Amino acid sequence: MSELNRQWRLIARPVGLPKPTDFELVSVPIERPGPDEVLVKIVYVSLAPGLRVYMSAAKGLEDKYAAKTGAPIRAWAIGRVVESRSDRFPVGTYVRDRPGNAGIQDYSVLPATTLEVCDPSVVALPAYLGVLGTQGLTAHIGMLHIGSLKAHETVVVSGAAGGVGSIAGQIGKIKNARVIGIAGGSDKCRYVTNELGFDACLDYKAGDLDAALTDMCPQGIDLFFDNVGGETLDTCLSHMAINGRIAICGATAAYNSAAPLPLKNHIQILNRQLRVQGFSYYANADKFDEAKTDLQAWVRSGRLKHFEDVVVGLENFYPTFMKLFSGQTVGKLVLQISDEVA
Amino acid sequence: MSELNRQWRLIARPVGLPKPTDFELVSVPIERPGPDEVLVKIVYVSLAPGLRVYMSAAKGLEDKYAAKTGAPIRAWAIGRVVESRSDRFPVGTYVRDRPGNAGIQDYSVLPATTLEVCDPSVVALPAYLGVLGTQGLTAHIGMLHIGSLKAHETVVVSGAAGGVGSIAGQIGKIKNARVIGIAGGSDKCRYVTNELGFDACLDYKAGDLDAALTDMCPQGIDLFFDNVGGETLDTCLSHMAINGRIAICGATAAYNSAAPLPLKNHIQILNRQLRVQGFSYYANADKFDEAKTDLQAWVRSGRLKHFEDVVVGLENFYPTFMKLFSGQTVGKLVLQISDEVA
Repeated sequence: MSELNRQWRLIARPVGLPKPTDFELVSVPIERPGPDEVLVKIVYVSLAPGLRVYMSAAKGLEDKYAAKTGAPIRAWAIGRVVESRSDRFPVGTYVRDRPGNAGIQDYSVLPATTLEVCDPSVVALPAYLGVLGTQGLTAHIGMLHIGSLKAHETVVVSGAAGGVGSIAGQIGKIKNARVIGIAGGSDKCRYVTNELGFDACLDYKAGDLDAALTDMCPQGIDLFFDNVGGETLDTCLSHMAINGRIAICGATAAYNSAAPLPLKNHIQILNRQLRVQGFSYYANADKFDEAKTDLQAWVRSGRLKHFEDVVVGLENFYPTFMKLFSGQTVGKLVLQISDEVA
Repeated sequence: MSELNRQWRLIARPVGLPKPTDFELVSVPIERPGPDEVLVKIVYVSLAPGLRVYMSAAKGLEDKYAAKTGAPIRAWAIGRVVESRSDRFPVGTYVRDRPGNAGIQDYSVLPATTLEVCDPSVVALPAYLGVLGTQGLTAHIGMLHIGSLKAHETVVVSGAAGGVGSIAGQIGKIKNARVIGIAGGSDKCRYVTNELGFDACLDYKAGDLDAALTDMCPQGIDLFFDNVGGETLDTCLSHMAINGRIAICGATAAYNSAAPLPLKNHIQILNRQLRVQGFSYYANADKFDEAKTDLQAWVRSGRLKHFEDVVVGLENFYPTFMKLFSGQTVGKLVLQISDEVA
């Protein structure tokens, strides 16, 4: 192993949309595993909007996860063990690390205590970063625990074609709710209704989202699963049903906005007795087992469809990452770093 | 009974601050009770910010309670039965009507099924409109059920000198929390700390609420009980602790504002995984018994102090009502219509 480890680092905190000059690709010697550690050759890296959040010095829960400038960018990844000092993870095992420290690089040394096996004979490996990874957990916990979804309710999901949104809406359908997606563009909307089976999908780029919601949700929205924030959230607030719930999972509209996007309809939280809750899957570890069991069963039975957008090449990190903010992504975005078997 | 019933009516929906010309005082014949009804001579009427909400044609939960122009203004009241067609409420009994239909008038005919006895030998009658009425229920449900208050947490209460706020903060102290009030003016702040026993009270009129919260809540706010909305809510959002809760009970800052007061810091709902919930006591009827038991015990033991601001004279409705929006009220505002025994 005389080759080097190519590694993406954050060198400046992005303000607004990340710039190419916020990052650099460096080559460093490959580290060696210590006791109870393994060296992993990374195969797939998860690119998700959360990465952008960690790149800001946000006050709040992300503090301890905030990316450090000059340091490797943390990311979830799946890799193959190529050198092992742990009996539980022999060479050749595919693993994922729970805290998402693997990074956007060729190799990562990871403690065995943080690893889980990913079995490619059960589901194709990229799915372990999406529907069977943090996105599936997020969608499950957001819909069923935070959102208290009940059968026959009207659910709206923003970012419906995205990684979490596509799963959240399908969980709504599995639980016999009426599910309306919001996505940008007619292609995405077709994907959401035709492929994912949502009852309808509203194209916010096509014009008047407010009027479309009036048409589609005349009795109001019982549960709004929001990945977008900003104007979408503000519009949906004025369509909520009494006692409605809003599960705030993300705010892609806000991540790259230097100025806050003011909310004007928040008085509806009071008027309609809404419960609005921001959440992250990782604060709900007691729900993981139930969620994993459900998700795996639904995937294997074909009830829960998943689609991974796999882009090849570590060198393509920046333009691939930017797809997340361009409205171009459908399904779970994954960067492939190496071949599964090499 | 040849006298007339003087009755306040809403003749125009207020836009912004109510104007004298939005109301009229008319005199009409006194109605007679039908079977299972009583005629009540009203003694005390509750004046609360909620009345202002009902005067708007707000979409939402208030729809069915919205005041109708040309009709008597609904209000909670305590009165003495002066003519009875119900065995349960003989002449001379003091009663309160649960739905708050009694109105701002000399006499009201009320169905016996909606009445509760108020015993002046237990607590002075005006307290049944405040600490033992809807305000006590609201504070109890908001702090303990919606707000999930736990001992040793840091609680902030806006409108701390007001009817609900003064009770909410005291419940916080009874439950061994650290309680910081927000009120307008040094007199109110002194009342909140010296009379009600809050740990501190911040005078938002004195200047920099943001800096004051940084000083007083360095670990963040676990529970914010909000009666005010607008800028106060926005400022507190950026001081919430991770997993904090905001119980939105009212929005006095918004009621009289023709334009919405935009929220800029709502991204903290996501970043800090907050639970923000609008509520009204009346949607939580299953909690009433527990709340009433607690409140009555705390009042009788002297642990829960209450203060009623009693203004005498039906003709004084308008200027008294306006006190609610002038920052002049301390405690529960009550309009006295007649003597307790006449």
